Amino acid sequence: MADQKKVVLAYSGGLDTSFCVKYLGEEKGMEVHSVLVDTGGFSDEEIADIEKKAYELGVKSHYTSRVADKYYNDCIKYLIFGNVLKNNTYPLSVSAERIFQAVAVAEYAKSIGATAIAHGSTGAGNDQVRFDMAFRTIVPDAEIITPIRDMKLSRDAEIEFLKSKGVDREWHKAAYSINQGLWGTSVGGKETLNSYDNLPESAFPVQKTKDGEEEVILHFEKGELKGVNNEKFDNPVDAIRKLHLLASPYGIGRDTHVGDTIIGIKGRVGFEAAAPLIIIKAHHLLEKHTLTKWQQYWKQNVAEWYGIQLHEGQFNDPVMRDMEAMFTSMQAHVTGLVRVRLASYRFDLLGVKSDYDLMSDVFGSYGEMNNAWSGDDVRGFSKIASNQVMIYEKVKELAEKK
Amino acid sequence: MADQKKVVLAYSGGLDTSFCVKYLGEEKGMEVHSVLVDTGGFSDEEIADIEKKAYELGVKSHYTSRVADKYYNDCIKYLIFGNVLKNNTYPLSVSAERIFQAVAVAEYAKSIGATAIAHGSTGAGNDQVRFDMAFRTIVPDAEIITPIRDMKLSRDAEIEFLKSKGVDREWHKAAYSINQGLWGTSVGGKETLNSYDNLPESAFPVQKTKDGEEEVILHFEKGELKGVNNEKFDNPVDAIRKLHLLASPYGIGRDTHVGDTIIGIKGRVGFEAAAPLIIIKAHHLLEKHTLTKWQQYWKQNVAEWYGIQLHEGQFNDPVMRDMEAMFTSMQAHVTGLVRVRLASYRFDLLGVKSDYDLMSDVFGSYGEMNNAWSGDDVRGFSKIASNQVMIYEKVKELAEKK
Amino acid sequence: MADQKKVVLAYSGGLDTSFCVKYLGEEKGMEVHSVLVDTGGFSDEEIADIEKKAYELGVKSHYTSRVADKYYNDCIKYLIFGNVLKNNTYPLSVSAERIFQAVAVAEYAKSIGATAIAHGSTGAGNDQVRFDMAFRTIVPDAEIITPIRDMKLSRDAEIEFLKSKGVDREWHKAAYSINQGLWGTSVGGKETLNSYDNLPESAFPVQKTKDGEEEVILHFEKGELKGVNNEKFDNPVDAIRKLHLLASPYGIGRDTHVGDTIIGIKGRVGFEAAAPLIIIKAHHLLEKHTLTKWQQYWKQNVAEWYGIQLHEGQFNDPVMRDMEAMFTSMQAHVTGLVRVRLASYRFDLLGVKSDYDLMSDVFGSYGEMNNAWSGDDVRGFSKIASNQVMIYEKVKELAEKK
Amino acid sequence: MADQKKVVLAYSGGLDTSFCVKYLGEEKGMEVHSVLVDTGGFSDEEIADIEKKAYELGVKSHYTSRVADKYYNDCIKYLIFGNVLKNNTYPLSVSAERIFQAVAVAEYAKSIGATAIAHGSTGAGNDQVRFDMAFRTIVPDAEIITPIRDMKLSRDAEIEFLKSKGVDREWHKAAYSINQGLWGTSVGGKETLNSYDNLPESAFPVQKTKDGEEEVILHFEKGELKGVNNEKFDNPVDAIRKLHLLASPYGIGRDTHVGDTIIGIKGRVGFEAAAPLIIIKAHHLLEKHTLTKWQQYWKQNVAEWYGIQLHEGQFNDPVMRDMEAMFTSMQAHVTGLVRVRLASYRFDLLGVKSDYDLMSDVFGSYGEMNNAWSGDDVRGFSKIASNQVMIYEKVKELAEKK
Repeated sequence: MADQKKVVLAYSGGLDTSFCVKYLGEEKGMEVHSVLVDTGGFSDEEIADIEKKAYELGVKSHYTSRVADKYYNDCIKYLIFGNVLKNNTYPLSVSAERIFQAVAVAEYAKSIGATAIAHGSTGAGNDQVRFDMAFRTIVPDAEIITPIRDMKLSRDAEIEFLKSKGVDREWHKAAYSINQGLWGTSVGGKETLNSYDNLPESAFPVQKTKDGEEEVILHFEKGELKGVNNEKFDNPVDAIRKLHLLASPYGIGRDTHVGDTIIGIKGRVGFEAAAPLIIIKAHHLLEKHTLTKWQQYWKQNVAEWYGIQLHEGQFNDPVMRDMEAMFTSMQAHVTGLVRVRLASYRFDLLGVKSDYDLMSDVFGSYGEMNNAWSGDDVRGFSKIASNQVMIYEKVKELAEKK
Repeated sequence: MADQKKVVLAYSGGLDTSFCVKYLGEEKGMEVHSVLVDTGGFSDEEIADIEKKAYELGVKSHYTSRVADKYYNDCIKYLIFGNVLKNNTYPLSVSAERIFQAVAVAEYAKSIGATAIAHGSTGAGNDQVRFDMAFRTIVPDAEIITPIRDMKLSRDAEIEFLKSKGVDREWHKAAYSINQGLWGTSVGGKETLNSYDNLPESAFPVQKTKDGEEEVILHFEKGELKGVNNEKFDNPVDAIRKLHLLASPYGIGRDTHVGDTIIGIKGRVGFEAAAPLIIIKAHHLLEKHTLTKWQQYWKQNVAEWYGIQLHEGQFNDPVMRDMEAMFTSMQAHVTGLVRVRLASYRFDLLGVKSDYDLMSDVFGSYGEMNNAWSGDDVRGFSKIASNQVMIYEKVKELAEKK
Repeated sequence: MADQKKVVLAYSGGLDTSFCVKYLGEEKGMEVHSVLVDTGGFSDEEIADIEKKAYELGVKSHYTSRVADKYYNDCIKYLIFGNVLKNNTYPLSVSAERIFQAVAVAEYAKSIGATAIAHGSTGAGNDQVRFDMAFRTIVPDAEIITPIRDMKLSRDAEIEFLKSKGVDREWHKAAYSINQGLWGTSVGGKETLNSYDNLPESAFPVQKTKDGEEEVILHFEKGELKGVNNEKFDNPVDAIRKLHLLASPYGIGRDTHVGDTIIGIKGRVGFEAAAPLIIIKAHHLLEKHTLTKWQQYWKQNVAEWYGIQLHEGQFNDPVMRDMEAMFTSMQAHVTGLVRVRLASYRFDLLGVKSDYDLMSDVFGSYGEMNNAWSGDDVRGFSKIASNQVMIYEKVKELAEKK
Repeated sequence: MADQKKVVLAYSGGLDTSFCVKYLGEEKGMEVHSVLVDTGGFSDEEIADIEKKAYELGVKSHYTSRVADKYYNDCIKYLIFGNVLKNNTYPLSVSAERIFQAVAVAEYAKSIGATAIAHGSTGAGNDQVRFDMAFRTIVPDAEIITPIRDMKLSRDAEIEFLKSKGVDREWHKAAYSINQGLWGTSVGGKETLNSYDNLPESAFPVQKTKDGEEEVILHFEKGELKGVNNEKFDNPVDAIRKLHLLASPYGIGRDTHVGDTIIGIKGRVGFEAAAPLIIIKAHHLLEKHTLTKWQQYWKQNVAEWYGIQLHEGQFNDPVMRDMEAMFTSMQAHVTGLVRVRLASYRFDLLGVKSDYDLMSDVFGSYGEMNNAWSGDDVRGFSKIASNQVMIYEKVKELAEKK
């Protein structure tokens, strides 16, 4: 058909997006082009299997967009530079990944000249907004199609429809909904639907297998993780994976986050993010040694915002690029090693070593007298530094007497 | 002597301030009035012993200023409201306490009309500035005398001087310098004088004695801790002490902080603060459920500054009172319970229960469809929320074509 | 009719809302209750005329909600405390007023148990969102009806419809769309629809009639304007009106603002706000004399946000109340007089007098030596205050040599 | 003398620094090297005259450091990017200049290996701290000598001393102390020593000579002023000077600033800064058209701080470089022209024209319907955007019923 609508679909191989393939193709008569975006969470086997299934469902073409390195360079790197933890808790594991998937899908749609673009999100969470916003920013003229959100179908209805179209697979309905990626794993289940309960150990995909303790040395270069123990990595993505292998057997990095969704309700999610948490906290410690007081203060302020904007799908606002320019400038001296102790369900930061460490003994140490200034200098400092409040108190006293 | 100078001395019973009593009294011919400020860290026996020793050294009068409740009401309360952790790490255990001691000493000096006021700090740390600034703000006309800072005496020289004056006590020189208070214990030693080493287990005054796990329920009322498990407390100071007794045997709350001192150098200090850390994190979680997004955002911004100002001895700046007014307003709904799991060297937050929980199922839950808005509403939201960036991209594209 | 839908309509007497009365009443069969909200911009004659016209159009009831004092106490007061000028330019004249109108309409709807609530905004500006949001927050169960936005009717079509219903008034189509209120007048016209042109003198409703210069004394008490020259006012609303009468004949306070609308596009609007600008700038000057450095810094930061939230219809977020608590605390000493010179198209701030002026000569004046500190004290201050950067430079130099 | 101390003196040709030459050379026996730093305020004749006088006083060498371009590139440029006005008023005319002078003197001292470095500031103002801090950061090992501050000499005593050394010049004692530079002129006098009085017209060095009105077109490229009317400038310094010539005859840009000095007291200063104010306000307007909402918000926040740090002599803190990186990134689209009307004692911004103007009619204009979104989209937006506050109100209502 010459005038068949060309739709690009964000496809994961799951029930919702499988439904979309059939629905868009056979009910709506569109030419469906599926895209799988790999941000570093899929094996080659999984990718091949998803592609195979897409063609079985009848897509016109399937494309796998491999963006792990781009994801690191354009996003995770800055989350590390900024020590970004949403509400001091959550490394934005899913938020960041979903946005990169949405952007990759939209860019693919642009490249093949699609006139429509579809995602399988429901109408209840953050992801729908991230997809919507990335799509609208990058391919503003494309129609955005969201069958699951629009029709509010139940799982059973979707399965029924697929069966009616001859697709009769085993659609796994797990007790816990899990999203695994390079920057952490999220876990949702019945416990996270209320405020009181806590996820059981068994809800997490990786079980704790190690006891005892172990020391790990992380090597940072200008804020990027370039080495773990004696192993050097050109690509920090590999260093992240290495650290994940070392730390996750200890059950490190599990927590539950409750946060504000983009649509204004509170949402609760469990997560396991051993490598992200260790890297961020170690990086932060190295900065505490190498940055000035105001560098730390401003980076925290700006990064807090950066995290919120990213979470809410505003990654393409140019202010994000401006903030990244500031973060990069601030990393010039964040080079050195950090000692980390891994232990059951926790880790400790032990110390750092850096040529740029401002806790230098060049001019004397904390707690000991030194030669670069005298007690009299500090006395003068205290005097001048208390001037305004002293004047304030005096003026207040005089004013109140009147 | 009619014209003998009346000096108030911040006195702790240790070597430095004992030296000051003798030095000011006998070498300088002043009338020495010693003050011990109890912020909640001393037992009655210790207080009596310190008083006895002061008189033995020859003070004209000794006064014990008991300020634990005031310390809580004027300071710790707001540190909890603000979830204040310096650099996301340190609950300002010593910083806060020292300022309240300095203020109490200055107010005593004012009340007895002293013309001089003395402290025994050295010239190398934060405390000297805190004492100097509080003294100057509250008794601006009093001369500030700091013998240890001015004369740069060694311990041996101080002991020698005291011996020559007939004072021959055992001056305990511990391997670790420890400061215990209501809001945590600090530990300094040879490991904290460099960036690389970590304090050993034995450096901490309280040893770990418990294994296993235990759940504790914390009850908050408008942001204040008013109950622990089934026990209610009128005075949150008692609740803090109760929680300390429960948590510290697990070795919870130990860490090392490196921060920017008031005098511009980096300083490193170990600390043990089980109760402060658990309370702050539990309070924070309850706020994540009961405050709006922007309440949380602004409280964090303002509290970050509040902590820095407090740390740097600027507690008397009226902006601190203004910030406290904001914090108090923000606590109106921070009422409910928080479940905490105590375990070896760590604690986990399990869940909350609050009438003011915004993660309410009144209008539907996260992850499920609801009746208060539709998928179309979200579609409209996403469209409008992406307008500016969409326009930005379009305008940029057109401009670059010119 | 027992089951006739009861709708409350925000009614101004203009074409759009007159259309709504007829449309809702006669086409939709609803029971229309019109509300006019007077925020201080209407005369009694105008109010009576609008009421008369409402009944002529067939409303079931008409109510005039007089909220000028409430508008001042709940909003304008804080805009003054915060020196709020959007983008350093615009006193939020219309933004603030519209929100109070929306809130008053919603509260009236709640009080009479309306099941629907309507406004006449188009789909292109800020006002629709302000009405929508206030309605949804205060009467979440009421249906929101917006005929003009939904039907995208032209003026001619509306007039035609009204004629067909027997309403044949003169609908004034001015060259400039003008909104006059207590906190300023906005002016839109063909010049403000592009970025390049400027509104002509004649576009403003009040013409300049005075030349020369005149000095005015403004008296503030805890941040509120309580006197103009020798006249005292219990109600600051009257003081604002008095100042408006004095200043507007000079043509003071005209400017054009371009800002970000809530819906993400840029919008440009002319305004005349003599009294608001003079009050805010005079109040700001008084604060520069009476607040500490950090009080000023934080008030500006927080007030910037307060203005944005108000502009965007988020006035009911509880964070606004928290910020108001901070602003109020900061006004304790903002008492005194400010000298202002009125002149053609401009005003100058000449000086202040306040018992709380921190530019006190108690301890010496700027530019002259004083007795509260010495040159040596400043030398010490400078030394300590430059410590961190000095160490930074030294460490950097050594690191780069390696 | 082989061991004569080599001192570099910041020299201006005035009484204080002339005293320093003689005092350091003849009383202290030092080898005096004078430096005049020209930040763009001196003519060649003045520079030659100052050099001649230095040698007459007996300096070993005199050096003129010409830093106008560096001053623009390293500082003024960023003050424009950031629209920096201290307390929304003062363009930091003297603050910025003095720091660049201090840095230039310190760098010269470093280059010739001086072991001492001197300035002639008194102990009462900001300048002493700026000199002290720049000296200590750049030449930490050099002794800082400040004869005027240390000896608290009166003008008469200085003149007497110079006479005794055979220097018998006319030392002009003006009624107003004036500092003219590229970025504005400051004026101090008896009126600025209190809070109430205002500088008279005659206190300003440049008199108003023009009436009427005139339109000027300013051309910006990536935030820098590169053209005035039809004239293009490679060097923005020349464009600033050109604008100054056009605007100052109108008496534009005069005001009085009261601010917090570095030493904690309030200070008041008159200033005339026609070109800086016009440039900053015009640049700001262009940004309001070309930056997104959050770019503007964050630039203002960060720039506020940048101005405070600069004012307080902390220009060398690396956080300033990080902020400059952000500012530069934000200027990518700040290209276009701004129309300005010059008039008696004021100027008005009339409009802009820019390829990057986000007030584009590509998708529809403010106040008119458009095709990129519908009324329903806005309805959905408002609904979702009010979700949290709606839920907050509902939860509060239910909680309070319990």
